[in-house]
Amino acid sequence: MAPAGAKKGILERLESGEVVVGDGGFLITLEKRGYVKAGLWTPEVVVEHPDAVGQLHMEFLRAGANVMQTFTFSASEEKLESKWKDVNAAACDLAREVADKGDALVAGGICQTAIYKQDADEARVKRLFRLQVEVFARKNVDFLIAEYFEHAEEAVWAVEVLKESGKPVAATMCIGPEGDKNDVTPGECAVKLVKAGASIVGVNCRFGPGISLKTMKLMKEGLQAAGLKAHLMVQSLGFHTPDCGKGGFVDLPEYPFGLEPRTATRWDIQKYAREAYNLGVRYIGGCCGFEPYHIRAIAEELAPERGFWPPASDKHGIWGSGLNMHTKPWIRARARREYWENLLPASGRPFCPSLSKPDS
Amino acid sequence: MAPAGAKKGILERLESGEVVVGDGGFLITLEKRGYVKAGLWTPEVVVEHPDAVGQLHMEFLRAGANVMQTFTFSASEEKLESKWKDVNAAACDLAREVADKGDALVAGGICQTAIYKQDADEARVKRLFRLQVEVFARKNVDFLIAEYFEHAEEAVWAVEVLKESGKPVAATMCIGPEGDKNDVTPGECAVKLVKAGASIVGVNCRFGPGISLKTMKLMKEGLQAAGLKAHLMVQSLGFHTPDCGKGGFVDLPEYPFGLEPRTATRWDIQKYAREAYNLGVRYIGGCCGFEPYHIRAIAEELAPERGFWPPASDKHGIWGSGLNMHTKPWIRARARREYWENLLPASGRPFCPSLSKPDS
Amino acid sequence: MAPAGAKKGILERLESGEVVVGDGGFLITLEKRGYVKAGLWTPEVVVEHPDAVGQLHMEFLRAGANVMQTFTFSASEEKLESKWKDVNAAACDLAREVADKGDALVAGGICQTAIYKQDADEARVKRLFRLQVEVFARKNVDFLIAEYFEHAEEAVWAVEVLKESGKPVAATMCIGPEGDKNDVTPGECAVKLVKAGASIVGVNCRFGPGISLKTMKLMKEGLQAAGLKAHLMVQSLGFHTPDCGKGGFVDLPEYPFGLEPRTATRWDIQKYAREAYNLGVRYIGGCCGFEPYHIRAIAEELAPERGFWPPASDKHGIWGSGLNMHTKPWIRARARREYWENLLPASGRPFCPSLSKPDS
Amino acid sequence: MAPAGAKKGILERLESGEVVVGDGGFLITLEKRGYVKAGLWTPEVVVEHPDAVGQLHMEFLRAGANVMQTFTFSASEEKLESKWKDVNAAACDLAREVADKGDALVAGGICQTAIYKQDADEARVKRLFRLQVEVFARKNVDFLIAEYFEHAEEAVWAVEVLKESGKPVAATMCIGPEGDKNDVTPGECAVKLVKAGASIVGVNCRFGPGISLKTMKLMKEGLQAAGLKAHLMVQSLGFHTPDCGKGGFVDLPEYPFGLEPRTATRWDIQKYAREAYNLGVRYIGGCCGFEPYHIRAIAEELAPERGFWPPASDKHGIWGSGLNMHTKPWIRARARREYWENLLPASGRPFCPSLSKPDS
Repeated sequence: MAPAGAKKGILERLESGEVVVGDGGFLITLEKRGYVKAGLWTPEVVVEHPDAVGQLHMEFLRAGANVMQTFTFSASEEKLESKWKDVNAAACDLAREVADKGDALVAGGICQTAIYKQDADEARVKRLFRLQVEVFARKNVDFLIAEYFEHAEEAVWAVEVLKESGKPVAATMCIGPEGDKNDVTPGECAVKLVKAGASIVGVNCRFGPGISLKTMKLMKEGLQAAGLKAHLMVQSLGFHTPDCGKGGFVDLPEYPFGLEPRTATRWDIQKYAREAYNLGVRYIGGCCGFEPYHIRAIAEELAPERGFWPPASDKHGIWGSGLNMHTKPWIRARARREYWENLLPASGRPFCPSLSKPDS
Repeated sequence: MAPAGAKKGILERLESGEVVVGDGGFLITLEKRGYVKAGLWTPEVVVEHPDAVGQLHMEFLRAGANVMQTFTFSASEEKLESKWKDVNAAACDLAREVADKGDALVAGGICQTAIYKQDADEARVKRLFRLQVEVFARKNVDFLIAEYFEHAEEAVWAVEVLKESGKPVAATMCIGPEGDKNDVTPGECAVKLVKAGASIVGVNCRFGPGISLKTMKLMKEGLQAAGLKAHLMVQSLGFHTPDCGKGGFVDLPEYPFGLEPRTATRWDIQKYAREAYNLGVRYIGGCCGFEPYHIRAIAEELAPERGFWPPASDKHGIWGSGLNMHTKPWIRARARREYWENLLPASGRPFCPSLSKPDS
Repeated sequence: MAPAGAKKGILERLESGEVVVGDGGFLITLEKRGYVKAGLWTPEVVVEHPDAVGQLHMEFLRAGANVMQTFTFSASEEKLESKWKDVNAAACDLAREVADKGDALVAGGICQTAIYKQDADEARVKRLFRLQVEVFARKNVDFLIAEYFEHAEEAVWAVEVLKESGKPVAATMCIGPEGDKNDVTPGECAVKLVKAGASIVGVNCRFGPGISLKTMKLMKEGLQAAGLKAHLMVQSLGFHTPDCGKGGFVDLPEYPFGLEPRTATRWDIQKYAREAYNLGVRYIGGCCGFEPYHIRAIAEELAPERGFWPPASDKHGIWGSGLNMHTKPWIRARARREYWENLLPASGRPFCPSLSKPDS
Repeated sequence: MAPAGAKKGILERLESGEVVVGDGGFLITLEKRGYVKAGLWTPEVVVEHPDAVGQLHMEFLRAGANVMQTFTFSASEEKLESKWKDVNAAACDLAREVADKGDALVAGGICQTAIYKQDADEARVKRLFRLQVEVFARKNVDFLIAEYFEHAEEAVWAVEVLKESGKPVAATMCIGPEGDKNDVTPGECAVKLVKAGASIVGVNCRFGPGISLKTMKLMKEGLQAAGLKAHLMVQSLGFHTPDCGKGGFVDLPEYPFGLEPRTATRWDIQKYAREAYNLGVRYIGGCCGFEPYHIRAIAEELAPERGFWPPASDKHGIWGSGLNMHTKPWIRARARREYWENLLPASGRPFCPSLSKPDS
C-alpha cells in the first residue's frame, strides 16, 4: 500500500470528484461488544481496550472507508476530566495505525458541549474546543470534523476554532428537515457553516437514512440559493426513523436499548448511498447503528463510480450471489438483485406496532 | 485469574447445579464484520484474520460466557479440503488463548455433513467426524459438542464418534417442536442422543428463543417419560421466528440478508434466559444472531443465581440505569426495568408486514 | 318466484348436492345500525323496529342467502322475560315474509342458556328450549338450528328437544380446534350431535374464517372415523382472529367495539367459501361481522357450482370489474382478479400491532 | 315532534352556536348492502329500492343527524341520462319523509362534473348544475350543498348557481392539506368559496379524520387571514388514510374493495368530533365509510354541548357501559372510557403492512 505521505487529502479527493466513504458508528457498536457504556457514551475504551477499538477501525477500513475518525466523541475536560487528553492522544494513534494500512485519512472530531446549553458562553465553549484541537494538531490528523451539533451557533464556533489549525474542516449537524433547536433551517445552517469556514457540510446522527437525505436536500438548496459552494457530507443513523420528531431518535421510545427492529439492512444502505450520490453528496458514511457491513454496502453500491471494490467484498457475494450454490432451490432463488431490492422484511413481532410516538 | 488446570469441567459444573453460559454466533457476527462469506459459511477467517476471531472470543468472554467454542463450523475435508486441518488447529489455539484469560472452557464442535444427505453412509460420515476429533484431541479441548444436526440418526453417529475421545459430549439438534427431518419427535431425539452417550442435550440455531424453548420442553418431557437423565442445553437464534415452518429460519424470505428487524433486544434475551432456567436448562447460550451483548444479557439475568456479574457489565447499567443522568427527563424515565420489560419496539417499517410466509 | 310450498326442503337440497348459502350476522350488524344493544345482545328490535330487521333479511336474500334465520338469538324467558314470546313470533313472521320473496327457507334458532352454566339441570334447560320450539312449530318454520353452544352436552340436549318437532335439525357449536369447554374435541362433538339426531353439524361464531375451517376439518375427520354421515355447515365470524385463544373473539381486547380492523374483505370471504366447499361443507354462511356483501361473496364464488348469480350481483362487478371505466388508469388496473386476490390490505394504523393477546 | 315548519334553519342553528350533526355515507354503505354499484357510484337505488334508502336515512336520523342529505350524488344528466330527474325528485321525497320524523333538515347536493375535467366550459357546467337545482327548488329542500369538488374554480361556479336559489349554501371540497388540483391552498379555496357566496365551507370525503381536520385548520387560518367569516363543516371518510397522497383514498391500493382494515372505530370518531369541535367546526358529519354508529359517536361525544342524546343511544352504553354485566370479569373490565380510548386495535393480519404506497 502507498505510504501515508502519498495519500491525497480530503479536499483534493472531493475536488477531483471522488466519492469519499466515511466510517460507521463506534458508540453503539462498541456498546454491543461490551466496551462502551450507554448514557454518558464516553470513549475511555480507547485506553482501556485499545485492541477492541483498533479492530473496529480495521473492519471499517476493510469495508471500504476512506476516513478513520478518531474515537474522541465527547472526549473533553467536560466529561472525562483529567483523562481526556490521554484518551484523545491514544485515539489519534489508533486511527493513524489503521489508516496507514490502507487508503484512509485520519479525521479528528469534536462535538457539541454541555456548557453551551447551560449558558452559551462563547469564550468558554471555544476554550474547550481549542484544548481538543491542540491534541489533534500535535498528532497531525489529516482533517477535522465538527459533528453532532444541535445549534448552528455552536457549530459555527466550532468551525472557527477548527479553522485556526489550518487543516480542512468538515461540519455536520444532527438536525432534521425542521432545522436546529432555534429553528434555523437546514439551508441557513449550511450557509452559516460555510461562511464560518467549513469546506464540507452536512448532517450526522439522530435521523435515519431517509430523513437525513431530506435534510441534505434542503442544505444543498440553501447553499445554491446563497450562491455558495461546498462539498456535501452525510452520515446518517443505521436505523429507520420515519416516526421521529424534531429531536430525532433519542426521543423515540426504543432509544437506546430497543432499536434492533429498526436496523437498516445492507440493501437499505445501498439505496441510501445511491440516493446520496444522486443528490450530489460525495462524502457518504454512517453514524450510530452503522456496522462495518453497512459501510461495505456504500462501497459496493458506488464501486462502479469509484472503480474498485473494498477488501471485505472478498467475503460478500454481490446482491446475495453467494447463495447460488445453496442446496435448497428456494434459497438459491434469493441470489439476485430483484429479490433483495423488493424484499419487505418482516419484524417477527406481530404484537408490536410499526411506528412509535416520540416522547418529549 | 485461576490457572486453566484449576477449572472445573463442564460436567462438574452442571452436576453441582451451576449455570453455564454459552457463547454466541460467529458466522453471522463475523459476516457483518466482513470476515465470513454467506452461502458456504466456512471459518477460514481463523487463519486469515485470527485477530478478528480472537477479538470476538474475547467479547463473549467479557460478556460472561463459560465456553469458548472453537470456530470450526463446517471445517472439514468436505468443505475446506486440505485447508481444514490448519483451520481447526488454529481455531483451537484461538479459543484456548482467550479461555485462559477467564473462567471458560474450550469446546470442540462438529456439525452435520453433506455426505449424510447424499447417501447416509455411516462409515464415511463417521470417518469425516473422526478426522476432526483427532485435532480436538491433540489440542486437548475440554469437551465436545455435536451441533446443528437435522437428523437424529446422524447426530447419534456424531455422538458415538465423539464419545470415543473419552471427553464429555454435548449434542444439540437444529430442530423445532415438529421434530427432525424424518419426523422423529424432539423427545425421541433427546432419548436417542442420551442413549448414544451424550451427557448434555438440547437444540441450537434455526429457531428463535420462543420456539427453541418449546422444543426444549418436549425434549425434557421425552427424557422424563423414558426415565433418562441428562443436562439440558439451549443455544437459540438471536432472531424472532414465530412464523417459521419446520425448516426454521433459512426458509424465511429474510434469510440471510434481511433478518435485521427480527433481531432480539437484550430484554428479549433476559426473558429467554429466565424461561430457560425455569425450565431446568442450565447450559444457556446462543447461535446465529447472538452478539456479545445478548450473551451479557443471559449473564445479567442469571447473575443472582450465579452470584456474580460478567466483566462487561462494568459497561452496562442494569435495566437501563445508565440513562438516569440524561438531561432529558423523558429519557431518564427509561432507566427502569418496567420500561424495558414492557416496551413493544416499533420496526420503523410501516410498509412491511410483521410476519412472513416461509418459502419451500 | 316460486310459491313457498314448492320450495325444496333443507335436507332435499343438501342431499341432492346443492350448496346452501346461509345468512349473515344480525346482532353486530344491527348494533351498528343503532337497533341492538351490545352486552345483552337481545333481539327486541324485532318488535320495536320490525322494518329494520325486515330490511336486513331482504339484504341477505338479495345477497343470495337460502336461509332466513329467525332473529331470536337469546330470545327466551331467561333474558327477555314476558316479552320473549312476542319477539319470537314476530321474528318468525318477518323471516317468512322475506323468505317468500325468494328461494329461501326459514330456520328457527335456539342457543345456549345461562342456566346450563349455573347448574346444568337438564330438565330446566330442556324446558326453556321446549318453550321456544313451541313458537317455531306454531309458526311452521322450515327447519331448526341449535347454535352457539360452548358445551357439547347442552348442544345435545338442544338437538334432542328440536328433534321432537319432527323438523330437520342443524347444530353448530361456537368452538375452535381445541374443542368445547370440557375439552371434548371437535370430532367428538360432531359425533355426539349426529348421534343425538342432528342431520347437519358444524360451527358458528366466535372464530374467524381460517380457524372455523380448521375446526370443520376436525369435525369431518371425527365423523369419518366414527363411520357417521352428516351434512357439514359453517358460519364463521366476518373478522380475522388468528390470535384468539380457546374462548374465541370475545376474549380479544378488541371485542366488541374495536373489531373494525379485523373485518374480512369480500375477497377473504370468497377464499373462505371456496375452501369450505373443497372441504365438503355445503351449508356455508356467516355469523357476527358478516354483512350482506360478505354473503354475496359466498354466492358469487360458488356461482359456477350453483349455476346462478344472486340478485345483488346486479350491483357488483365480478372481481372489481366495475372499475374498468374509471378515469384514472391505475384504478382501472384494479379491475381484475389477480389484483384483489393478492392485495395485502394495510390497516392505516402504524401505531397498532397486527395481533393481540387474548384476555382471560 | 315539532312540525317541519317550526324547525330552525341551518344558518339559524349555526349562528346560535348549535352543533349540527351531518349524516354519513350512502354510496359505500349501500354498496355493502347490495344496492349501489362501485365504479359509477350512481344513486338509482333511490327509485329501484326506495325502502333501502329510506331505512338508511332513518338510521342516520336515529343516530343523531340533523341533516338528511338527498341521495343525489352524481345524479345528473351526465351520468344518469333521462333517469336523473326522477331519481333526484324521489331522493328529495325520501329525505323529507324521514327528516319530518325528527329534528332534521333536508339538504340538496350537487358535485363535480366530468365536463369540467374535459374542457372547463363554465356555461355547460353551470347549466348542468342549474337543472339539478331546479328539482331541489321545486321540492323545497332546506339548504344546498356543493360537495366533492377537486377544483376550487368549479366549486365556485357551483356556489354561484346554488346561490341563485336564495337558499343557504354550504360548499365542501374533497381536498387535503396540499390543496386542490391546481395547487390552490385550502385557505385560498375557503376564501374563494366564501366570496362566491357560501355561508358554510369545509371538506368532505377523500381523506380520513386526521387529515381532514388538518385541512380544516388551514381553511380556518385562510379565512382569518382574509378577514372573512364563515361556518366550518367537515365530513371526513370513515377510513384512516395517513398514507394517502394528494389524490386521497382513491389512489390507495385498497380502494374501494379492501378498505375494511382502515375502518374507524366509534372511539376514533368521538376523538374526531371533539377535535373538530375544539377547532371551531360546528357542522360535523361523515362521508364514505361513515356508518350510522359513527354518526352516533359524534352525537354522543358532543351530547354535553348539545344537551341531549340521540335516539339510538338507547341501544348504546356510553363508553362500553353495556358490558358491565358480562359474566367474564375481563370483559366487564372493558366497560370504561380509559379502556376504549387507549385501545390500539390489532388488524388480525400479520402478513399485511400497516401503510400502503398510493398508486398514481
